[in-house]
Amino acid sequence: MESSSKVPENEVEVDHVDMLNASFDGYGGVIVNVKEDMDENIFTTLLRTSISQWRQQGKKGVWLKLTIELVNLVKPAVKEGFWYHHAEPTYLMLVYWIPETNHTLPPNASHRVGVASFVVNDKGELLVVQEKSGVFKGTGVWKLPTGTVEEVCNFFFFFFVTLFFFFLTKNQTDQVLCSQGEDISVAAIREVKEEAGIDTEFVEVLAFRQSHKSFFSKSDLMFVCMLKPKSFVIEKQDSEIEAAQWMPVEEYSNQPFIKKHKSFDYIAKICMAKKDNKYVGFPALPTATATSAKKSYLYSSYQEE
Amino acid sequence: MESSSKVPENEVEVDHVDMLNASFDGYGGVIVNVKEDMDENIFTTLLRTSISQWRQQGKKGVWLKLTIELVNLVKPAVKEGFWYHHAEPTYLMLVYWIPETNHTLPPNASHRVGVASFVVNDKGELLVVQEKSGVFKGTGVWKLPTGTVEEVCNFFFFFFVTLFFFFLTKNQTDQVLCSQGEDISVAAIREVKEEAGIDTEFVEVLAFRQSHKSFFSKSDLMFVCMLKPKSFVIEKQDSEIEAAQWMPVEEYSNQPFIKKHKSFDYIAKICMAKKDNKYVGFPALPTATATSAKKSYLYSSYQEE
Repeated sequence: MESSSKVPENEVEVDHVDMLNASFDGYGGVIVNVKEDMDENIFTTLLRTSISQWRQQGKKGVWLKLTIELVNLVKPAVKEGFWYHHAEPTYLMLVYWIPETNHTLPPNASHRVGVASFVVNDKGELLVVQEKSGVFKGTGVWKLPTGTVEEVCNFFFFFFVTLFFFFLTKNQTDQVLCSQGEDISVAAIREVKEEAGIDTEFVEVLAFRQSHKSFFSKSDLMFVCMLKPKSFVIEKQDSEIEAAQWMPVEEYSNQPFIKKHKSFDYIAKICMAKKDNKYVGFPALPTATATSAKKSYLYSSYQEE
Repeated sequence: MESSSKVPENEVEVDHVDMLNASFDGYGGVIVNVKEDMDENIFTTLLRTSISQWRQQGKKGVWLKLTIELVNLVKPAVKEGFWYHHAEPTYLMLVYWIPETNHTLPPNASHRVGVASFVVNDKGELLVVQEKSGVFKGTGVWKLPTGTVEEVCNFFFFFFVTLFFFFLTKNQTDQVLCSQGEDISVAAIREVKEEAGIDTEFVEVLAFRQSHKSFFSKSDLMFVCMLKPKSFVIEKQDSEIEAAQWMPVEEYSNQPFIKKHKSFDYIAKICMAKKDNKYVGFPALPTATATSAKKSYLYSSYQEE
């Protein structure tokens, strides 16, 4: 087939006028990355020609990433049979399945991930905060510092690396900024530093909670992390935190709001047991995923003999 | 202000001709749900008028859910300043922030969640499978049954409930279909049943792993679950599974592929320790989230004295 040679397997881009710019992945998939705006009718023609070629080549899934600037190409894509896979603020990912069979495309992300931090000082006092907004605003409830695990690391380190790359090339900046999601342990340390100005090190995950339909049919996973404080002078964040203090653990756990809710009451009991060295959670072991060299962490209480 | 009375706080819909159909949430947010197609210019005019009113009423975030059939309204919304929040196969959620301040809209889901199941029979044999596709295809590696936690439960129960509602109203069908994400424990049981035909009950989470950038900058969480078998005759799924069998745990853990990868090797060691009653993971305790009656599970090894 003559057409095959136009789109070689090694992610070499196709720049023929009658085909869309695309690369191939190792799973029979085609990744289209439209880089500049074009007339809707020309786009439709290119899409039809390209899909016809990819069908002949035995390709399966087609991934079409349209940045928000290319919003005018969303409608023609959907009219050709594409549907939505996922979206982020700056782009929409559409997909198309060429074979007659049911598609085997991977699912979208389904869970938001949060952390709550249990930080106890040498006097047995717990770091607690009151928030300026959210459901606990104005309730007087003292709670553990909490936050969301971010999709992109926001370290100072990354800031400087990003600055560095910015002077090299814009593309590489994007790669660095989007290079990696945040580790649970890192998120817990970051939130405590942001909300209360306390430096900590990660000890272990004490417990986690899965709940559903928190937000537009997505689910939540919340990890309660034990952190060891390395500094003790509180400097609270003014924008989000109403108050922050060290409080006896018993005083925290005896709050009516905590006692009333099974989930909070149970977490408080776990924290008190941990304070008295009567509980073992899941510390983190650095590993790598089996199918690539990507860094990962395995959380368990197993210790080699 | 006269206009305030048109859009009361208790999710009463606005049906004035010069405003978009909308309801309000408890956080100063506006939820627009366009139910039928309309001319793009009329939509733009309605959007401008509505935002102007909501601004006067002190509203903040505007959520615009457009089903894929309403794809022609995506472009006018983006032109008015909306951006993408998230997308699912059948709809795109756009957002707009009315105040001059930085937005405080909740983030999109960031993690896909998977399960791997450790199922041992009375003879100390482990349930293992070989997959027909994916990275392990043709490698001869025997692995634990794995799968993805689904956003929507796919029980027969839900199928029948859905069918029932289908004959009542289409809207309610959608509500049932999207009513709840899947519990980790339920996903583990479902995957073992689907892949090997074995009935099980959930015991505990032995360990979990967080890894990054598995798919378009999203992260993965994988929970290793221990399940107790209630049936023993394997009926493998033909479409995805090449082979399934009961295998001595030691034979599984001695596979060169398992020994070579720290993450798999460690999980195998945890499984062997568990088989010999030398390990304690996190069982699940049914709870409810503190701010609503929504069901949730707390996973920890804490036991009340």
